[in-house]
Amino acid sequence: MKSTSHKVSIRKRTTLRIAVLGATGYAGVELLRILIRHPRVRVEIITSQQYAGKRLSEIYPSLAGRCDILLEEIQLDKIASQADLAFAALPHETSMEVVAGLAERGKRVIDLSADFRLHDPATYLRWYRAHKAPGLLREAIYGLTEIHRKEIAKARLVANPGCYPTGAVLGLAPLFAEKMVQGTVLIDAKSGVTGAGRSSAVELSFSEVNENFKAYNVGVHRHTPEIEQELSQIARKPVTVFFAPHLVPMSRGILSTMYVGLKKAPDSERLSKIYNDFYRTDPFIRVLPPGSFPQTKEVRGSNDCAIGFRYDSRAKRLVVITAIDNLVKGAAGQAVQNMNLMFGWPEVEGLTTTALVP
Amino acid sequence: MKSTSHKVSIRKRTTLRIAVLGATGYAGVELLRILIRHPRVRVEIITSQQYAGKRLSEIYPSLAGRCDILLEEIQLDKIASQADLAFAALPHETSMEVVAGLAERGKRVIDLSADFRLHDPATYLRWYRAHKAPGLLREAIYGLTEIHRKEIAKARLVANPGCYPTGAVLGLAPLFAEKMVQGTVLIDAKSGVTGAGRSSAVELSFSEVNENFKAYNVGVHRHTPEIEQELSQIARKPVTVFFAPHLVPMSRGILSTMYVGLKKAPDSERLSKIYNDFYRTDPFIRVLPPGSFPQTKEVRGSNDCAIGFRYDSRAKRLVVITAIDNLVKGAAGQAVQNMNLMFGWPEVEGLTTTALVP
Amino acid sequence: MKSTSHKVSIRKRTTLRIAVLGATGYAGVELLRILIRHPRVRVEIITSQQYAGKRLSEIYPSLAGRCDILLEEIQLDKIASQADLAFAALPHETSMEVVAGLAERGKRVIDLSADFRLHDPATYLRWYRAHKAPGLLREAIYGLTEIHRKEIAKARLVANPGCYPTGAVLGLAPLFAEKMVQGTVLIDAKSGVTGAGRSSAVELSFSEVNENFKAYNVGVHRHTPEIEQELSQIARKPVTVFFAPHLVPMSRGILSTMYVGLKKAPDSERLSKIYNDFYRTDPFIRVLPPGSFPQTKEVRGSNDCAIGFRYDSRAKRLVVITAIDNLVKGAAGQAVQNMNLMFGWPEVEGLTTTALVP
Amino acid sequence: MKSTSHKVSIRKRTTLRIAVLGATGYAGVELLRILIRHPRVRVEIITSQQYAGKRLSEIYPSLAGRCDILLEEIQLDKIASQADLAFAALPHETSMEVVAGLAERGKRVIDLSADFRLHDPATYLRWYRAHKAPGLLREAIYGLTEIHRKEIAKARLVANPGCYPTGAVLGLAPLFAEKMVQGTVLIDAKSGVTGAGRSSAVELSFSEVNENFKAYNVGVHRHTPEIEQELSQIARKPVTVFFAPHLVPMSRGILSTMYVGLKKAPDSERLSKIYNDFYRTDPFIRVLPPGSFPQTKEVRGSNDCAIGFRYDSRAKRLVVITAIDNLVKGAAGQAVQNMNLMFGWPEVEGLTTTALVP
Repeated sequence: MKSTSHKVSIRKRTTLRIAVLGATGYAGVELLRILIRHPRVRVEIITSQQYAGKRLSEIYPSLAGRCDILLEEIQLDKIASQADLAFAALPHETSMEVVAGLAERGKRVIDLSADFRLHDPATYLRWYRAHKAPGLLREAIYGLTEIHRKEIAKARLVANPGCYPTGAVLGLAPLFAEKMVQGTVLIDAKSGVTGAGRSSAVELSFSEVNENFKAYNVGVHRHTPEIEQELSQIARKPVTVFFAPHLVPMSRGILSTMYVGLKKAPDSERLSKIYNDFYRTDPFIRVLPPGSFPQTKEVRGSNDCAIGFRYDSRAKRLVVITAIDNLVKGAAGQAVQNMNLMFGWPEVEGLTTTALVP
Repeated sequence: MKSTSHKVSIRKRTTLRIAVLGATGYAGVELLRILIRHPRVRVEIITSQQYAGKRLSEIYPSLAGRCDILLEEIQLDKIASQADLAFAALPHETSMEVVAGLAERGKRVIDLSADFRLHDPATYLRWYRAHKAPGLLREAIYGLTEIHRKEIAKARLVANPGCYPTGAVLGLAPLFAEKMVQGTVLIDAKSGVTGAGRSSAVELSFSEVNENFKAYNVGVHRHTPEIEQELSQIARKPVTVFFAPHLVPMSRGILSTMYVGLKKAPDSERLSKIYNDFYRTDPFIRVLPPGSFPQTKEVRGSNDCAIGFRYDSRAKRLVVITAIDNLVKGAAGQAVQNMNLMFGWPEVEGLTTTALVP
Repeated sequence: MKSTSHKVSIRKRTTLRIAVLGATGYAGVELLRILIRHPRVRVEIITSQQYAGKRLSEIYPSLAGRCDILLEEIQLDKIASQADLAFAALPHETSMEVVAGLAERGKRVIDLSADFRLHDPATYLRWYRAHKAPGLLREAIYGLTEIHRKEIAKARLVANPGCYPTGAVLGLAPLFAEKMVQGTVLIDAKSGVTGAGRSSAVELSFSEVNENFKAYNVGVHRHTPEIEQELSQIARKPVTVFFAPHLVPMSRGILSTMYVGLKKAPDSERLSKIYNDFYRTDPFIRVLPPGSFPQTKEVRGSNDCAIGFRYDSRAKRLVVITAIDNLVKGAAGQAVQNMNLMFGWPEVEGLTTTALVP
Repeated sequence: MKSTSHKVSIRKRTTLRIAVLGATGYAGVELLRILIRHPRVRVEIITSQQYAGKRLSEIYPSLAGRCDILLEEIQLDKIASQADLAFAALPHETSMEVVAGLAERGKRVIDLSADFRLHDPATYLRWYRAHKAPGLLREAIYGLTEIHRKEIAKARLVANPGCYPTGAVLGLAPLFAEKMVQGTVLIDAKSGVTGAGRSSAVELSFSEVNENFKAYNVGVHRHTPEIEQELSQIARKPVTVFFAPHLVPMSRGILSTMYVGLKKAPDSERLSKIYNDFYRTDPFIRVLPPGSFPQTKEVRGSNDCAIGFRYDSRAKRLVVITAIDNLVKGAAGQAVQNMNLMFGWPEVEGLTTTALVP
């Protein structure tokens, strides 16, 4: 499949036909929340292993009258013939076979799992397990829109970033691009509970999470290699980070507090200029004035990433804090942003919702 | 001012010019969240007593780049000359003077305070205090859109309903219209905390509200006469209700559980038909199948009102439960819905956002 | 077993030996929180089907150094020989066989499941399923301490009440005892999430419950017959209630708002006297002045039940509101209160903890 | 006053008479929650500027029947004559005058404000303002019990530590005592909302805090010099830390995640030994096995501090995480622990409550 001819064929139709695989997970239903209001697409197929045969609105009544189609099991040939683009919001390690099947059938895919984010099969093996479609790893484009815009536009397979890597890399990229960083960056990240997906784990039950705060997977979280891969590419040399995620008793939002050693003490004007220049043309990035920091609520339900920073001369550390909604910029919103790029549409199409505040 | 000529003059312009008075309260900022994406309006003036001189985005960073205009103090002549419609989201008892001033200047106003909801000045006096613009009370149209659609379309002054009355009356109206109700209806309502507005009261601080549930103003809440006024009008005879509000440790949403005695035991098919017929053409009302009840989350951030009911033959009571977002259908969303009617636009314009789930 | 000889044998020992069956559920661990500080008991055996072989402190680190014994599977003979009293905090419908086995072995048991609360096997069948130990049903004493104090003191098997029935019956008992009630009482109850136990159900996950409010099992909840059984006994005639439970996004607490028709309008002094007289000697009941209502937070972590009431002459309804902690007075605390009675100790022993506020 | 003679005079009485100044703030009411169950004390005087003349149980109904005495204004002479010990839970900068007045009258005081925590008046001036009782600064003992046990026992004035410094210093002390630390320690702390006290600030209202996560006072929080003072004293050389506090949407609890550079890579057995040796005799410190980290819920309502650590060889950083309840070990509980020391009682007296889980 050549993307050029693909674009031509799409443009003949007025509306892009979409399949959402894994539609009843949180990333899946967030995709649908966005896509049903997107002016250029029509959701044609939605799948769910658990709920096949039911209407989506039986599981999510808020979609009644907006997306009442039946959930199906995954049928690759049917998807290939009836959809122009598939979003795969399937569990890690099970997504790869489905994506490979769609790729074989010439379909463009945006995959929200971790399966195609790491370029190196050996790294995937170390943090997950043996990869079943290592050939596709080389072809997949890492879908952090602001960093890989050009490749995404032409991509056949986009590996949508993890929620944590989105918040972390967007906050650090300008510093690594400017080669200002010295030493290991510490990323102390805090996520709302939807980041763990729609889950029946006891430890994610309300009674366990509410009125509680904890760290988990400190130093061993699977998003670590994803962050390092991207920062290394930007820095053009190997980067090591230390990543400590925490669970916040709230539903949505990631705040990433990052501690960065710099080669020399910056002045805040220059820092401001570096961030603002780097994100000059990015509609969803909000760079705050020096010394101001974002809150998760100000991005909740929107595709925004807000970035604040402050250099502390006592500690000789730059603190960078980013806030995203893990389900939007950290998953479904960024996936739609990537779709917009892939089909030559305005990047903000369907994504102009303002954060739900308060 | 005649509304006809008004409409003509508006239609010549492509875009309606809006003033939002009290823009930094929760109803005000929710109005702005909706209005900045409404295709037919432009927000021209925003006012705030507390923050006059600041940019709105300094108080609400989520609106940065979307609504960066300066907050002003209220200047009636300026508003009259630069805005076609004013939304007043001011405190109860202070709104009436501002609204009267705008009415004198021939402006159409949608008032979100309680000041013009009660038709009878004596009732207002009993529950609030002496009214300063009793003449306008007779002119004001109660803005419960589904009940007063025709009058709202022609109204000069719309008194936007309270959040509790919206949830209660929408759930009970079909029963009173069918003259099925016997005895006092009990309304056990539960509201999220934003219903109390942007407040510095200690009893609304996080540490007091969180992990707590309580009733307040049981039997004496000011929304009682509003509910009774509307149900009496529908029933064409005096209706008494008992209203017991409760505070839920969540930000948005009202669930109203209502216990209704009926003149005779209904069959559920007929009940279904009554509700579905009554709301046949109403885009924001979602009548659930008999025996199903709504949750507040399925309407959060949307202008929907979901209605469920179940007749219990043991207790001889019909239970009706409605769910709304107090800031949307219970305030700003319904206000915009009313604006759409007043200017002859599709009722759903600017209000098609789906609930934020999860 | 005769309770008299039993008491004698216990009093020879300085310390009562306790078994807690189902120690890792929320009622079980709450029992342990209370029992490890109780001056007259020693926890000898704790069981868990899921975690047998582990230390309790591995699942609940807060108990490290306070209760580090090993979890075991249930072995009836061992329990019978090593414990003087067993608390059974096992799932409904599985508890009855274990309890029957302990009863056969002459053990006194406080059962926190629903299995022995309903005296009539036919009622149990209707709301649960066929009972496997119907003979014991007749012997079991319903453990609502304030109502059945005398029988509990002599009981061999105490059926500890459900959390909802505790809050409801304590609020209504004085009115039924005085034969003041007319018509069906409506009970609109609101519970924190721990009432559902330690659960892996998706609908109890944080992302589903948080920022949501809903009713469930309206009119069909299994606690209905328990409430009716107790009120009928107090009223000495059949009582029907309508029971509508709701789920509050908080961990602990039940607020029960009850709407009561009265035979004649009461004066509030007389009402106060009725409540205060009824609970004159009850250390855990807090009757509020007329017109005041309790909040759940003021009883959180304590064995208190706070009761408020207000008669509304417009609606001709008495509103009674009670607040309890569902895990303490609604489960483990009341169980310990019953143990104190059964062994002739002061009723408040081990239960003097004040609510955790804020 | 000599403490020796003081002790003698106290021991003659069976019960210590206590005054709690600022009894209606969160630290104050938490003190009362603990003190009313303490077997060796009697609360004689409670003061409140705002509520003088009311009963405490009017503001905190949970204390009805447990502490129903009247709130008074502060009268130094009365306190001096009727109380043996005063806890001052007054606002920073207003406490110092009251404490000085009591010191003049020969009273022993445990001050929960920040006013006497910093030994150097110049440091106090830099972070707060000019000190009005600099002479007392030299006499005051910093009340971090595990570090200054001996001095506290003899102290006339104990400056009870801030909540953040308690969590931070307890986690870091063994490392500094062993001179293992290299470079600036980064402290990324997360606190529940009660840490801000009983407040009417809009930004602490439920609607602002709920479903939100943010950093505040990054690098400029007033607890920074307190942490540095204590660590410098342990290290016997100046220590600089970087302190970044965050606000968690929960009521109680502080989790402090600390990133520590070490002079050489430790093995985890040695680390374990260092921590366990350092806290060998401390009843409230729970050192977790290497690689395990605590959660805030496991200490909620208790005086415990749980400590976990893990060395990461990739990042060459030791991560130390501590969890405390900010109102107990971080305020009122530690104050009572200090009182126990000051009067020669068992350190755990009145503080044996287990955490409220779930």
